[in-house]
Amino acid sequence: MENARVGYLGPEGSFSHEALATLQHVEPVAYVSIEDLLGAVADASIDQGLVPLENALEGTVSATIDGLVFDHDLVILQEIVLPIHLHLLARPGVRLDEIESVRSYVHALAQVRGFLHDHGLASVQTTSTSQAARDVAESKEPWGAVGSALAGELFGLSVVASDVEDHPDNATRFVVVGRDDVAAPTGHDRTTIVCFQHTDRPGTLYAMLGRFAARDINITKLESRPTKRGLGDYCFLMEFEGHVADDVVADCLSDLQAHLARVKFLGSYPVTGEGASDRRHDVTAARVAADQWIDAIRGRVLPT
Amino acid sequence: MENARVGYLGPEGSFSHEALATLQHVEPVAYVSIEDLLGAVADASIDQGLVPLENALEGTVSATIDGLVFDHDLVILQEIVLPIHLHLLARPGVRLDEIESVRSYVHALAQVRGFLHDHGLASVQTTSTSQAARDVAESKEPWGAVGSALAGELFGLSVVASDVEDHPDNATRFVVVGRDDVAAPTGHDRTTIVCFQHTDRPGTLYAMLGRFAARDINITKLESRPTKRGLGDYCFLMEFEGHVADDVVADCLSDLQAHLARVKFLGSYPVTGEGASDRRHDVTAARVAADQWIDAIRGRVLPT
Amino acid sequence: MENARVGYLGPEGSFSHEALATLQHVEPVAYVSIEDLLGAVADASIDQGLVPLENALEGTVSATIDGLVFDHDLVILQEIVLPIHLHLLARPGVRLDEIESVRSYVHALAQVRGFLHDHGLASVQTTSTSQAARDVAESKEPWGAVGSALAGELFGLSVVASDVEDHPDNATRFVVVGRDDVAAPTGHDRTTIVCFQHTDRPGTLYAMLGRFAARDINITKLESRPTKRGLGDYCFLMEFEGHVADDVVADCLSDLQAHLARVKFLGSYPVTGEGASDRRHDVTAARVAADQWIDAIRGRVLPT
Amino acid sequence: MENARVGYLGPEGSFSHEALATLQHVEPVAYVSIEDLLGAVADASIDQGLVPLENALEGTVSATIDGLVFDHDLVILQEIVLPIHLHLLARPGVRLDEIESVRSYVHALAQVRGFLHDHGLASVQTTSTSQAARDVAESKEPWGAVGSALAGELFGLSVVASDVEDHPDNATRFVVVGRDDVAAPTGHDRTTIVCFQHTDRPGTLYAMLGRFAARDINITKLESRPTKRGLGDYCFLMEFEGHVADDVVADCLSDLQAHLARVKFLGSYPVTGEGASDRRHDVTAARVAADQWIDAIRGRVLPT
Repeated sequence: MENARVGYLGPEGSFSHEALATLQHVEPVAYVSIEDLLGAVADASIDQGLVPLENALEGTVSATIDGLVFDHDLVILQEIVLPIHLHLLARPGVRLDEIESVRSYVHALAQVRGFLHDHGLASVQTTSTSQAARDVAESKEPWGAVGSALAGELFGLSVVASDVEDHPDNATRFVVVGRDDVAAPTGHDRTTIVCFQHTDRPGTLYAMLGRFAARDINITKLESRPTKRGLGDYCFLMEFEGHVADDVVADCLSDLQAHLARVKFLGSYPVTGEGASDRRHDVTAARVAADQWIDAIRGRVLPT
Repeated sequence: MENARVGYLGPEGSFSHEALATLQHVEPVAYVSIEDLLGAVADASIDQGLVPLENALEGTVSATIDGLVFDHDLVILQEIVLPIHLHLLARPGVRLDEIESVRSYVHALAQVRGFLHDHGLASVQTTSTSQAARDVAESKEPWGAVGSALAGELFGLSVVASDVEDHPDNATRFVVVGRDDVAAPTGHDRTTIVCFQHTDRPGTLYAMLGRFAARDINITKLESRPTKRGLGDYCFLMEFEGHVADDVVADCLSDLQAHLARVKFLGSYPVTGEGASDRRHDVTAARVAADQWIDAIRGRVLPT
Repeated sequence: MENARVGYLGPEGSFSHEALATLQHVEPVAYVSIEDLLGAVADASIDQGLVPLENALEGTVSATIDGLVFDHDLVILQEIVLPIHLHLLARPGVRLDEIESVRSYVHALAQVRGFLHDHGLASVQTTSTSQAARDVAESKEPWGAVGSALAGELFGLSVVASDVEDHPDNATRFVVVGRDDVAAPTGHDRTTIVCFQHTDRPGTLYAMLGRFAARDINITKLESRPTKRGLGDYCFLMEFEGHVADDVVADCLSDLQAHLARVKFLGSYPVTGEGASDRRHDVTAARVAADQWIDAIRGRVLPT
Repeated sequence: MENARVGYLGPEGSFSHEALATLQHVEPVAYVSIEDLLGAVADASIDQGLVPLENALEGTVSATIDGLVFDHDLVILQEIVLPIHLHLLARPGVRLDEIESVRSYVHALAQVRGFLHDHGLASVQTTSTSQAARDVAESKEPWGAVGSALAGELFGLSVVASDVEDHPDNATRFVVVGRDDVAAPTGHDRTTIVCFQHTDRPGTLYAMLGRFAARDINITKLESRPTKRGLGDYCFLMEFEGHVADDVVADCLSDLQAHLARVKFLGSYPVTGEGASDRRHDVTAARVAADQWIDAIRGRVLPT
């Protein structure tokens, strides 16, 4: 099997790169921005793209969502959840007490504020965590860089202090997106959609959720997003348990599509981690019996 | 085609008899009680039965509902709405000012209280409106009977005063019930069901209605009925627009059946009168387009 | 204290009479119909009236509900739940195997069909169970009557067979109605109302129930009733836990009144029997703390 | 009246600075980060702070929301909506066709991608739009800067091309936050809260919204936000019409507080722009009449 060409947000040594390393049969292609990366998938320059969707501390990654919602018709095929651990990196031989200033990307610096404060370290912003590691490697100064273990390896740096982040449970959810295919159902799936209301019919959010509640579909995420048509005009990014190949999900989506201005399908794909509740399976068993009951009744309907 | 043997609540001249007269190819069979009539349909002594289900003034007819809900597995095939007009009947030649007392069934007397009061007439209860007419016909006294035009004809009585009921808009909804077949869909149908909750999970009524609301199914009647297991233990008689042959109705019923202790199907049949709203058709059109959209997405799902 | 003059549905020996016997400081006044009885309370001929509201087998008593909903402005002050046991009564010395036919009111006969069938007994309808007892007492024939123990005592009859009803758990809920006062709250109360929808805004039933669900008010009964304006035009009789003196109930009723065509208040009164759930009290405790929180915030609002 | 010391996100010439310029009796104090600014309000170093809450293109500003939700107990007092127009700035005399590369903050560059592409301009990231203007002013090169009109004025630059943004309707909603006081109600207000669910009771979002729907409170924004306790654990940022001084809002908030793990109040403040619907006033009028009705009933309740 030929390797798929999969884009990621570079430079080398980024957390995206680390996430991509968990996949097999892949030829990595670095991009400088999420916009460029999604565009390259859309115009078939590459086969698929791996992009960050959500971070446990920062929330949704706007560039990814906006690209999927407004700019392209792509489909999420897979998710990869990567724990985010940050390390203080320096050239071999440099000790913690020698370091006076630390370089990294603005978000990474924000996540190690406690460590910097405790050790009286100044901070300098760079354009990425990888760039910080490169700067440190190429300098003769006793500088530190905050970044991933992979970045340290790539640029020959040592780990002076590991896991220096303020929140030890940080993680980023990456997704692999493609052009057409929808992932096969596994019985343990999630679906992501975006719903646009009719602008002249506000207040339909509650009714919208009712369509899920009435079908026992468990919504795991709901987030209003600006539609870029002015402040206060939102669409709704939703994630819920189940796959579009499940009849109850298909029925719910069709129902939403019939009542809203538009529903955009962003993919059904396997859940990583603990996943869907067992209650779902109970409901399904009872529903199978119920379907047989209704089929028997319908079998008695006289011809028109 | 052989005539169907259809039972009705006698005696001859009753309003049930009048309703039955609107049907063709029917051989009428009179019964003395609704219980006996439904039992005769159930044991195939007759082909079908015509029973009163609901009166505009009195509400649901308990004997009919209880027979359909608790005692038999029958199916409503057709409804007949009969306007109820009551007349003061007497032997030919007897004038209104000669009449001192009036005979009829207790419910009929209750519906002409204003007329009786205005004319200073005493009332005597009989076991049916037909029996009142018979009594008057067989007597030599200047008695009056309150009953239907048909009862007057059958017993040779004259109409001394017509339409003497207090509420001119009274009507009774009769239904024709059979054993197995479900009526063919006409696009203009109503479905009747009974829902039993799990006794250990009260408060599910709101969730139950949510399943209809989420599918835009219009509930036209909802009535709690005693389950005969003690005061305060109810089941719910429901009527709504649509036919079990409609996918959205089948899905909703199957969904209810999967979540409730039990759903009993009492029939899908053509609506008499003004019927279903146009909004329904709008929803359906949008839904067809939405189903095509979801089908296209499902066509792209990879094989497992 | 002077005895209150309280009307009941006669004749003497009726189940209403038996229910009234559970009250103290009462002077009973028999009426021949529920309509007359409610009218006598409304025009102050008597102080209060005791009327049957609901039977475990037969359901709601239409005459009572219609009188409270459409004809008068009365208030339910108290409920009395009476177990309904039916006995086969005969003149002293008459044995079961001598009895060939049995007399009673039509509803009572319907409730002993199993017993009659098992003993091959014919039935004869009378205008009340008391009348049946009187007929048997005054006759020389070996007749039976089906009625209450009290009816047997009043007319000097013996109990030939006791508890002959088909459903042993039958009971009737009676209510005592007055003109103005609302019963004091006991912490264990029920409220009864009737809701009328705007005729041009159907489908509001679900929204109506949502107002109760959002306030954790437990609906114990919901029944559509004909408004007497034509078939299919219903109002909704509702009963729920709580008293109009409870703020959350008052808020909910005011909210309903503001959104519906009309809400008619039929009374708040102590629950007989097991009553309201403990969950209610949990909710209340959390709500008290929450009210203090919101009051503290409102105390910080700047003057306009 | 002494001027209030109000912090803003610097440097001078930023859009925050422009927003602050719309306020009177204010002494501006620049901060280098939203975190520092909110901290300074919380520890009373300054009186109030002006922070960006939401941008029409980018959505919610995470640093602001996280500071208000997790780090401090501050209250939103006022909102300021500022249209965002970006201009191409250069030293006086430099023409558009001489410019080869353009400097600005990463978000500003993202918003002028169309313009840059059409004119074949390269982009260089700076730490703020103001910094870009400063860089251009201090350089001898034919550079361009993308920034606000105010930044151009402050650094003596000319506007080479105005309104070069891709989306002409862009705007940012800023809010002024203080420590204790809640703004006085104006009849035209919005309230912002954050709701935390019990972690062991998922799926309560629908019930939560039902509490608003049941009170006709119009939700204008709903956004799940990470709680920083791991991916998939969200709280809900909500905005809705009305003021905590309104009884119906207070009742709803108290109700939510009683049922959720926690509700955090972030302020009630006047709406800028078109604001609340007229429907709200209709509801209020009907509700006043309904309250009088319920008060009359409660006046009839007997003493305990």
